[in-house]
Amino acid sequence: MTAPETPKTYLSGVQPSGDLHLGNYFGAIRQHIAAQDNAYYFIADYHALTTQRDPQQVRDNVYDIAATYLALGLDPDRAVMWAQSDVPEVTELAWLLACVTGKGMLDRATSYKDKEAKGLTASVGLYTYPVLMAADILAFDADIVPVGSDQVQHVEMARDMAKSFNSAYGEVFKLPKFELGVPVPVPGIDGDKMSKSYGNAIPIIAPSKKLRKRVMKITTDSTPLEEAKDPTGCTVVELYKLMATSDEVAALELSYRTPGFGYGEAKQVLFEKLEEVFGAARAERERLDKDPAHVYAMLKQGADRARPVARAVLNRARKACGID
Amino acid sequence: MTAPETPKTYLSGVQPSGDLHLGNYFGAIRQHIAAQDNAYYFIADYHALTTQRDPQQVRDNVYDIAATYLALGLDPDRAVMWAQSDVPEVTELAWLLACVTGKGMLDRATSYKDKEAKGLTASVGLYTYPVLMAADILAFDADIVPVGSDQVQHVEMARDMAKSFNSAYGEVFKLPKFELGVPVPVPGIDGDKMSKSYGNAIPIIAPSKKLRKRVMKITTDSTPLEEAKDPTGCTVVELYKLMATSDEVAALELSYRTPGFGYGEAKQVLFEKLEEVFGAARAERERLDKDPAHVYAMLKQGADRARPVARAVLNRARKACGID
Repeated sequence: MTAPETPKTYLSGVQPSGDLHLGNYFGAIRQHIAAQDNAYYFIADYHALTTQRDPQQVRDNVYDIAATYLALGLDPDRAVMWAQSDVPEVTELAWLLACVTGKGMLDRATSYKDKEAKGLTASVGLYTYPVLMAADILAFDADIVPVGSDQVQHVEMARDMAKSFNSAYGEVFKLPKFELGVPVPVPGIDGDKMSKSYGNAIPIIAPSKKLRKRVMKITTDSTPLEEAKDPTGCTVVELYKLMATSDEVAALELSYRTPGFGYGEAKQVLFEKLEEVFGAARAERERLDKDPAHVYAMLKQGADRARPVARAVLNRARKACGID
Repeated sequence: MTAPETPKTYLSGVQPSGDLHLGNYFGAIRQHIAAQDNAYYFIADYHALTTQRDPQQVRDNVYDIAATYLALGLDPDRAVMWAQSDVPEVTELAWLLACVTGKGMLDRATSYKDKEAKGLTASVGLYTYPVLMAADILAFDADIVPVGSDQVQHVEMARDMAKSFNSAYGEVFKLPKFELGVPVPVPGIDGDKMSKSYGNAIPIIAPSKKLRKRVMKITTDSTPLEEAKDPTGCTVVELYKLMATSDEVAALELSYRTPGFGYGEAKQVLFEKLEEVFGAARAERERLDKDPAHVYAMLKQGADRARPVARAVLNRARKACGID
């Protein structure tokens, strides 16, 4: 008989960027919710301070993330979700890691180099961001950090810092692994990658009228109504594919090839699918917005579960350094 | 009638460097103890991690500072003394400050530039040291930070960070002022500046025999016993002047000018003065070392007083950023 395997712990940080859109949903949120057992999700409000100076925006975005995840099916009895700043142990751990991390590692961090190449003056926070990020990961003894390709370096740096610390002080940190997600291309209404900053996003949760208006704005080609249309590469079809069954997709593609079927009709099909998939979440979100205390209580419950974990890891690290 | 002035709050960090010597005493400790009302003194163990990798050494040095200060007359009912790591709020505050601090400020910090010029590879901790230092100062609403000339820049940087934060988020931090101490030259046994790293130090607290042996090793010139000696610039006289009355100094100088008075006798006079000044502290230290719990209780009491102060300042800063 082999011992039952301890379930792997997943950890992921969620940027409180506000205005969550379908790109966020299909790129990360859906996977977060699907993998929510043994998962730790923190809303990275400390990190947000490196770019966000409006305090009300910080507050609103944290709430928005929490309420959206809850509305979309996050179960606080399964996943642990909290606001990063409710577990301040990570800032202390970041200091301990900073003392074993060569400055060269941060100089080579791509996120910082990109900003610098654009001529932006980096703040110390932006520059040392990977150290706090490493603390975020290591404080929870995470096994797996699901990432996009642009985040791989952060996990590698966390591993390097953990190794430096362990080699200086003995085995304190578990070395996390990253798990590279398969990229999910989500086009925006102009056909480019959906992004808040491109202004081409479709919100996950929006009033029906607004959502429909947005869908109707999707750019399509100028094939006249009476001609057959090519579904290949059409943004409407691409978005529909993210949610519809293969039969439904085949049916829409057939309609495209049928003269007399217009893009307006196609968009209506997409809109109805969005209503089908996200309608319940919208209703739930409306319910939550009437009772924000419930959302904050969820975050508090998450912090209450996350904090002792971080505390235990921090205590190990402190003791190893002679801070006890 | 004018309102009574609120007493100014003094704050100073003490490096837990170990092997405290007369240079430390006359350069800082004596002043710290003299000014101990309304004073906050933290033992900078987080900072020590930037250079000290031996955990037992970190522990021993923190204890050594606390026990030495107590033995020399620190009254924990007047001054607040604590181990920096017992008030972890400063690491969180450091993050908030990092987000409003341009990286350029740290690039220009002399302590870092010096290390870099010597070809040393800086750790992130060493590089971001001034930010944690600023948090140490600002977290206690300090009015005055007594410094040596090499520390002025740290207070100036703390002021700059406080100003950046206040200008981004409103008036949160009190701007501290530095108070430049008059340098007290303390020669080591070889006549150079007394320094642990030069190996020329005389300990503040040492067994009588060891202390005497150390004093007897002071370098003097080779004027023969039977000739008159010049007290000017003689290390024995310079050290004696730090403790003796002007009458006592005059008497020793007269002896110097009297043929037949040898350096051995002069050193004996210095040794006896050291015994007179530090004998009681040594006895007190021996007593404390039999009951280290008392020393740790003093540090805990200090932390218990310091922490709510830091907490209140941190809460102001968090709230201003939208972290609440």
